[in-house]
Amino acid sequence: MKKAKRTEQDVPGEHRFTIRPMRETLVECVPNFSEGRDTAKIDAIAEAIRTAGAIILDRTSDPDHNRSVVTFAAPAGVVEEAAFRAVRQAVASIDLRLHSGGHPRIGAADVVPFIPLRGVRLEDCARLAERTGRRIWEELGVPVYLYEAAARRPECRNLADIRRGNFEGLREEVLTNPARRPDFGGPALHSSAGAVVVGARQFLIAFNVNLATSDVEIARRIARKVRFSSGGLPAVKAMGVLLASRNLAQVSMNLTDFERTPVDVAFEAVCAEAAREGVGVVSSELIGLIPKKALEMVAARYLKIEDFNASMVLENRLEERR
Amino acid sequence: MKKAKRTEQDVPGEHRFTIRPMRETLVECVPNFSEGRDTAKIDAIAEAIRTAGAIILDRTSDPDHNRSVVTFAAPAGVVEEAAFRAVRQAVASIDLRLHSGGHPRIGAADVVPFIPLRGVRLEDCARLAERTGRRIWEELGVPVYLYEAAARRPECRNLADIRRGNFEGLREEVLTNPARRPDFGGPALHSSAGAVVVGARQFLIAFNVNLATSDVEIARRIARKVRFSSGGLPAVKAMGVLLASRNLAQVSMNLTDFERTPVDVAFEAVCAEAAREGVGVVSSELIGLIPKKALEMVAARYLKIEDFNASMVLENRLEERR
Repeated sequence: MKKAKRTEQDVPGEHRFTIRPMRETLVECVPNFSEGRDTAKIDAIAEAIRTAGAIILDRTSDPDHNRSVVTFAAPAGVVEEAAFRAVRQAVASIDLRLHSGGHPRIGAADVVPFIPLRGVRLEDCARLAERTGRRIWEELGVPVYLYEAAARRPECRNLADIRRGNFEGLREEVLTNPARRPDFGGPALHSSAGAVVVGARQFLIAFNVNLATSDVEIARRIARKVRFSSGGLPAVKAMGVLLASRNLAQVSMNLTDFERTPVDVAFEAVCAEAAREGVGVVSSELIGLIPKKALEMVAARYLKIEDFNASMVLENRLEERR
Repeated sequence: MKKAKRTEQDVPGEHRFTIRPMRETLVECVPNFSEGRDTAKIDAIAEAIRTAGAIILDRTSDPDHNRSVVTFAAPAGVVEEAAFRAVRQAVASIDLRLHSGGHPRIGAADVVPFIPLRGVRLEDCARLAERTGRRIWEELGVPVYLYEAAARRPECRNLADIRRGNFEGLREEVLTNPARRPDFGGPALHSSAGAVVVGARQFLIAFNVNLATSDVEIARRIARKVRFSSGGLPAVKAMGVLLASRNLAQVSMNLTDFERTPVDVAFEAVCAEAAREGVGVVSSELIGLIPKKALEMVAARYLKIEDFNASMVLENRLEERR
């Protein structure tokens, strides 16, 4: 029975367990590009993001809309560089004068939102957006609008307002209407790359609830009841749509701040309105990703767990103690 | 507008983002020690675990029961070494002949369960338990029983059966009753350290539901309805208790396999039985930790998310892509 303490060096076993710092900040960036058909161009953009050191979480291209979305994450310093390189690559390879597709857009790199994930606040992301926007103008010569939490003017908070008229309309209007000028550069847009809308926002959860009816009017009435713009829940956008392939009406929601209106509250509101309409709820869909905190909130609230906190989750505790 | 690709080395920014392998196996170990009053002794045990390279997730000492529980996690190779060092430290410092306390126990290091967390199966943990058990006997001279998934005989699956008679009774009985002999070593127990029960089991969630009544009989009736042993839900143990300080009756549950009976199913069952009794459910309590998967299951099931999988959770996706 030896009692001599062994040191860390002589731990046997095939695996070594490295204690790693987990306190890095983490920012998400979800740039949209006006190219959804030429995979090689999006490959090059993704490669630019990767070589900057960011992690690509998701990537989708829509040939009809001729548009791609890349979702990536990295610490604050890296995310800025990766976003800039992605925009540079898009500006070099996408010509909006040759672009067609149904989705509103004003730029080759159309929208670049920064989203706080860990250890950063929305204001930090707004500052990050501002720096990246300035650099895009200074180094690439493409004008930039700042939107949402990074907006400098109320008329630029809303993305739809900035994009009104699309590339083709905006490049004319901007020359005569000072209210529509970019925040960096301009007034003239870049001839082939248009302008980039850069900003900061909270994580957005795309969450749809499927109803046991094909009557889209019911979904529309429910959407009007639950969405903020018509007197419903804060941070909830909603519309009623028909899922033609399944012949189901759907309440399609964007939850723009799940800490203000948790996912279960939005879900319950739709269920309650559906019940009033005499219609059942079949299922729900998550489009894209959901932060673990949003799911933890749902579970803890539903189970009525007293004094729930994230440290009660094994994996979170493990992260903290590393 | 430079187009030359930068390499990873020249990424600016205050933070560097290191791509790290996240595929390590992860095993939890929750050893129980027969010492809950002398903090220095438990400190030394915790230190032995830490210096082996494991991460301590939780630690509780109960002076009434004179018993401590340390929860730690590490990859397979490291967890074995950490468990062995913890037992060695306990054997060297705890004398059962001087021990008093209400909780059943037969060893200084009383029970050592290994629990699969990531990349290992229950069978792997059973083999790990066997190796650790053999080493405890060979190097420390303390006999070992293998229990639950590591048990070699049906009469040793259940911890309570192994501990029957406690240290004081078992050390006599083991000399005359071959059925009660240890799996490694013995038949005589170690004079001061008794024996160690080593095994493997699934993660256990301790989950209590508080009722809007002080009538403990109602909680007991509900417990009988929901627990497996009296015809209820698989992998659910339950009893009714009175929370004297709050004057609330509580259904106290151990969920021994949350994949077989998810937490929401157990919760719903208690709620339904409570409703039949005409009693409301006030809240629930989580004792110790819960794996994120258990919470994800609750949220996804409650929200009726179609084709939910863990990759839809942002942080999980990030882990996968690192």
